[in-house]
Amino acid sequence: DGSSVESLDYEVIENYAYREEQAQRGKLYIGYYVGVKWFFALLIGIGTGLAAVLINISVENFAGWKYSLTFSIIQKSYVAGFIVYVLINLALVFSSVYIITQFAPAAAGSGIPEIKGYLNGIDTHGILFFRTLIGKIFGSIGSVGGGLALGKEGPLVHIGACIASLLGQGGSRKYHLSSRWLQVFKSDRDRRDLVTCGCAAGVAAAFRAPVGGVLFALEEVTSWWRSQLMWRVFFTSAIVAVVVRIAMGWCKSGNCGHFGFGGFIIWDISGGQEDYSFRELFPMAVIGVIGGLLGALFNQLTLFITRWRRNYLHKKGNRVKIIEVCLISVITSVISFGLPLFRNCSPCPEADASSGIECPNAPGVYGNYVNFYCGRDKEYNDLATIFFNTQDDAIRNLFSAKTIHEFSAKSLLTFLVMFYTLAVVTFGTAVPAGQFVPGIMIGSTYGRLVGMFVVNFYQKLNIEEGTYALLGAASFLGGSMRMTVSLCVIMVEITNNLKLLPLIMLVLLISKAVGDAFNEGLYEEQARLRGIPLLESRPKNQMRNMTAKEACGMQKVVYFPRTTKVADIVSILRSNSHNGFPVLDHSRSGETLVIGLVLRSHLLVLLHSKADFQHSPLPSDLRGRSLPIRHSLSEFVKPASSKGISIDDIHLSSDDLEMYIDLAPFVNPSPYVVPEDMSLTKVYNLFRQLGLRHVLVVPRASRVIGMITRKDLVIED
Amino acid sequence: DGSSVESLDYEVIENYAYREEQAQRGKLYIGYYVGVKWFFALLIGIGTGLAAVLINISVENFAGWKYSLTFSIIQKSYVAGFIVYVLINLALVFSSVYIITQFAPAAAGSGIPEIKGYLNGIDTHGILFFRTLIGKIFGSIGSVGGGLALGKEGPLVHIGACIASLLGQGGSRKYHLSSRWLQVFKSDRDRRDLVTCGCAAGVAAAFRAPVGGVLFALEEVTSWWRSQLMWRVFFTSAIVAVVVRIAMGWCKSGNCGHFGFGGFIIWDISGGQEDYSFRELFPMAVIGVIGGLLGALFNQLTLFITRWRRNYLHKKGNRVKIIEVCLISVITSVISFGLPLFRNCSPCPEADASSGIECPNAPGVYGNYVNFYCGRDKEYNDLATIFFNTQDDAIRNLFSAKTIHEFSAKSLLTFLVMFYTLAVVTFGTAVPAGQFVPGIMIGSTYGRLVGMFVVNFYQKLNIEEGTYALLGAASFLGGSMRMTVSLCVIMVEITNNLKLLPLIMLVLLISKAVGDAFNEGLYEEQARLRGIPLLESRPKNQMRNMTAKEACGMQKVVYFPRTTKVADIVSILRSNSHNGFPVLDHSRSGETLVIGLVLRSHLLVLLHSKADFQHSPLPSDLRGRSLPIRHSLSEFVKPASSKGISIDDIHLSSDDLEMYIDLAPFVNPSPYVVPEDMSLTKVYNLFRQLGLRHVLVVPRASRVIGMITRKDLVIED
Ligand SMILES: Nc1ncnc2c1ncn2[C@@H]1O[C@H](COP(=O)(O)OP(=O)(O)OP(=O)(O)O)[C@@H](O)[C@H]1O
Ligand SMILES: Nc1ncnc2c1ncn2[C@@H]1O[C@H](COP(=O)(O)OP(=O)(O)OP(=O)(O)O)[C@@H](O)[C@H]1O
Ligand SMILES: [Mg+2]
Ligand SMILES: [Mg+2]
Repeated sequence: DGSSVESLDYEVIENYAYREEQAQRGKLYIGYYVGVKWFFALLIGIGTGLAAVLINISVENFAGWKYSLTFSIIQKSYVAGFIVYVLINLALVFSSVYIITQFAPAAAGSGIPEIKGYLNGIDTHGILFFRTLIGKIFGSIGSVGGGLALGKEGPLVHIGACIASLLGQGGSRKYHLSSRWLQVFKSDRDRRDLVTCGCAAGVAAAFRAPVGGVLFALEEVTSWWRSQLMWRVFFTSAIVAVVVRIAMGWCKSGNCGHFGFGGFIIWDISGGQEDYSFRELFPMAVIGVIGGLLGALFNQLTLFITRWRRNYLHKKGNRVKIIEVCLISVITSVISFGLPLFRNCSPCPEADASSGIECPNAPGVYGNYVNFYCGRDKEYNDLATIFFNTQDDAIRNLFSAKTIHEFSAKSLLTFLVMFYTLAVVTFGTAVPAGQFVPGIMIGSTYGRLVGMFVVNFYQKLNIEEGTYALLGAASFLGGSMRMTVSLCVIMVEITNNLKLLPLIMLVLLISKAVGDAFNEGLYEEQARLRGIPLLESRPKNQMRNMTAKEACGMQKVVYFPRTTKVADIVSILRSNSHNGFPVLDHSRSGETLVIGLVLRSHLLVLLHSKADFQHSPLPSDLRGRSLPIRHSLSEFVKPASSKGISIDDIHLSSDDLEMYIDLAPFVNPSPYVVPEDMSLTKVYNLFRQLGLRHVLVVPRASRVIGMITRKDLVIED
Repeated sequence: DGSSVESLDYEVIENYAYREEQAQRGKLYIGYYVGVKWFFALLIGIGTGLAAVLINISVENFAGWKYSLTFSIIQKSYVAGFIVYVLINLALVFSSVYIITQFAPAAAGSGIPEIKGYLNGIDTHGILFFRTLIGKIFGSIGSVGGGLALGKEGPLVHIGACIASLLGQGGSRKYHLSSRWLQVFKSDRDRRDLVTCGCAAGVAAAFRAPVGGVLFALEEVTSWWRSQLMWRVFFTSAIVAVVVRIAMGWCKSGNCGHFGFGGFIIWDISGGQEDYSFRELFPMAVIGVIGGLLGALFNQLTLFITRWRRNYLHKKGNRVKIIEVCLISVITSVISFGLPLFRNCSPCPEADASSGIECPNAPGVYGNYVNFYCGRDKEYNDLATIFFNTQDDAIRNLFSAKTIHEFSAKSLLTFLVMFYTLAVVTFGTAVPAGQFVPGIMIGSTYGRLVGMFVVNFYQKLNIEEGTYALLGAASFLGGSMRMTVSLCVIMVEITNNLKLLPLIMLVLLISKAVGDAFNEGLYEEQARLRGIPLLESRPKNQMRNMTAKEACGMQKVVYFPRTTKVADIVSILRSNSHNGFPVLDHSRSGETLVIGLVLRSHLLVLLHSKADFQHSPLPSDLRGRSLPIRHSLSEFVKPASSKGISIDDIHLSSDDLEMYIDLAPFVNPSPYVVPEDMSLTKVYNLFRQLGLRHVLVVPRASRVIGMITRKDLVIED
């Protein structure tokens, strides 16, 4: 169903309104423009940072309150505790799915595939609305707080992008929150830059990883990257880091309830393994392979299950979606509460005062060695430590160093299988859902398993299971998402340990290569499923043997003559769904001449306003009049992720239909053209590198007017 | 003198030899090709890593030996020590300048402007030769070991690029080190990818900063960046990190002489300031402003002095260059030895056993608090600590935490002024020279000065002067080089302290903005001076109002008819210096038709081989014969950074001159074209984003054959 997606237009349409506006711009305006750009970058940073803080504080408080309540009840009755636990989770999850289904359907899922699509040049309907933003924020709080097997990181990226896009439009028109003087960004191009900033800000906020955020945005937007943008994106990420830091400082003084204990993703393992020996590289490579396999499997399973949901389950309406999520919530609660009950408790390790590790921990307190359903005093439940816990704390425990043999292989395996299944099933339901944290959970579980074997096998070495858990996490994310540099940097930043960089890289190289042998990355697969046609950075091999002419098929080109009857325009627009039409004119000597390209959306604006209708079929300049200015550039701007006017919204009288429009002032006078026999590889590069929407295929030129070389383009001010 | 630079051609010339070769390629070949790419990335990493290790070990050993010898002599006589010190420095520096002037003139300077140019699309003569590589390695050892005010980091970037380029050519032909089966990279495009890897590897090796290396390469190559390249570049950097790590591990066991003590740039300040308060942001901003001002001044002064050198001094021949460098070496030695003598020694601070800081240190040992010309026992000379020391140790001392009040303001000021002057004077001499380490020295000196004032002013705070020194270093580099993200990440990686990231970013933002108000970045200025026409990422504002036709001026286009007389080709090639010529043909209906673009270098190959000369002026296919294959693609490949054949090397008999060549098989059949009235902004984007060398300006098309949209480019395998 590609009907809800539409390409963006990153080309500058140099029509007369644009030239008009350019001519009016003074030096002052350019200064203002640059100033607003940076100011917006600042606002995006602050907004995304605050959204992240809000989500984190809320989630931690809901979860903290939930766990302490449950713990206090199970001191008396496990059954009552269980019921309370299930109900609280259900209530939170229900609030989330209710918001999503009733109010902001576009906010379901992670949003990263759509944002990836946006940065690649495709707008998905509704993805950047104000209501999507709101739904995403509050939906995330419910779904993550409710203990589902999903994370809040993907949604944060989406939130950052929404904030950026709303700023770029100068606010939300629908909710009358817009301001005219902020509407300086009138092209998809400028908005895309803002969304790039927002995307980086989201990652920076999710992982407290400013460099990782920049690189993440970069990996997704490589084709339109410019160094100035890089600096602005970096600035945004830095602002996020500062905002988050201030908020956390404020929370340290106890203003944020349960937040003080856990909260923001950052699993400092600077106390981890100091050094690694070459013998360890083999088990690490094994982790990479496992990650590649499990990651690829995850992509495949989620693809099947999402396709099934789209085609059957979710067609049945919102009620089914709500019931589905509630069911999954109950199952998740039952498993996470019930499974630890079946696990025997283990005796606490010898107390080691210097390590500062307590065992067992008081119930409801963050830390390792949770006492859950243990008979004796000095015992802990290793499965509850990871399962019956917030995900952040669970990961912290899995990554923890100096806690050798905390977990038994059996518990880890049980958890791995269960959580993997839950993550697969939860994926694609109608709640905001990120895959980073579940991925880290899964990966660190088998990583720690491998680490345990290594510890047993190479007795002598100074090996930390926590380091292996980290590598496992990296390998699973690499095997599933197939990101490379940005993932690597994010992992380094969240663990705050630069020394592990080469190891993480090794593991990622392997897991990505293994995963690539099976399928595409998670986000690419999901984007494909949603009908978002991503353009990869490399043209396909068979394009070398195709020409531009072959690519556009046998279809006759639909074009407009320079002055066209309104009735003709309407009937042509109705008869096809093309979005761009060449405009042809006759030169004085009688030859035809392509004078430009006119966009469907611009034509619709013209039809809607009727200001340019004329009675004569002659072009206006031929009639000796200069062009009156009837449109400002902003009238042609389409709001983000909405469809603009449709041809069916326009009502014309029969008199109107008999009139003419001179299209010349409204065309893009110089669309990019390629000769008909250019190989498709070259066309592809042109199209993708410049972020185009239409390329005109024309006959070979008959003569050369001039040559442009580097010298002609190096102009001094 | 733009005569030594020439554009690179990143376009794929789809001539018949190329299509021939494409047709022969099977799946196996593509696999081999990808394999070789990664193998080369591996080799580049290993090579650059080893070069870095070699340079570092040599420099540390020369310097360590020099200082311990001097120290042992000055126990007896300061005069003798002084003479020995000066002579050793002179000998080292002389060896460097001798190598450069006699053997590898292109290895002088930092090489970064040239590499920047290469990645931007301009080849500078000789910059990537094998002899340049050798000269750079051994020249760096001499000039850095000889104590000049320059660093080895810029040269390492150049070294990485050289290694990459040599690999890309399959070895050095001149020295018979080439191998045919490695010559798979036949286009400038593939080589540029390799050089990008090499460039990143150089940075990674210089600073042990793999992520910084990737970002550095990225900031320079933004226009042609693709995600796959990113991953390969990252792989190369990781290899460098591993190689360096292995070498350092090996050196720890004492195999590398003096290297064990100091060596690789990495100033771990993880023990630095834990936290900062908002009151500190003001002095930090002041550091940013100072950095911007001093950096811009540095650029301006070096620009003047380099221009003067090029126009007067260095015109007088190599002897003058050698004398100049030797003179500077003597002056540097005298100042670094002499100035500390005039400084009064300070008493050692109270011994604090827990900090592990000794005072005074034994002479010749790395560390703070050097005893130099001090009368009493418990005294140290603060100026000698930074001046009479290797730069790495000096920086380590300036960055050191927990050494409050080690330096007096007077010493720091003296050092700042002296070292700044020396750095300016040394810049542009005929030795390999990097500006990173001198920049860090200068910056950290005033940074520490500001830090001292802050410590005195805000008595209570937990402030470390070392942190301010680091920020100072970042600010000076930002103010001079104007790099942003990469610099930031490099600073974080060399100090191994992620917490300082927002502060470094703040300082860089300010210093770059201040610097930009005065002039361009150091490398841009130097590139301009060398006649390297860099294309900035953003088109100039006035280009909006220019058309393509206006840009290429009134010059008549020089073109070739399809079959051209050899004599005409020769005379046309002699009469101008253009590098590309359109080729025109007549269609059956008698109109002219542009059939492609032929490059000067290809024409020269044809003239040289004579294989395609024919007696008839008719095109060969008109005479009913299929095209015989007389050339393989590799014959058309121009070796990197050399000029290839010149028209004067070609000798043709008068019979030859009377013959014809049919150019059709050799043209690039589909060069990119733009209509004559396209705005220059758009042409600029096309040119830069696609890395073009020639764009043909043609008349508007008379009809549209087809439209290419995203749908046409999303092809399933
Ligand atoms: N004016 C036109 N005349 C004839 N064929 C066209 C015209 N415009 C586009 N096409 C062809 O129609 C097909 C679909 O065109 P369409 O305009 O819907 O583009 P698209 O790829 O869906 O992108 P968009 O998101 O812009 O709609 C393409 O194969 C294209 O070659
Ligand atoms: N075939 C040609 N006929 C007419 N003018 C040309 C031709 N080729 C280039 N020019 C013009 O000559 C000038 C210099 O051209 P030249 O070919 O030397 O390119 P350049 O910018 O120096 O780059 P390169 O490094 O490729 O030489 C440019 O202004 C260009 O417009
Ligand atoms: Mg369409
Ligand atoms: Mg030239």
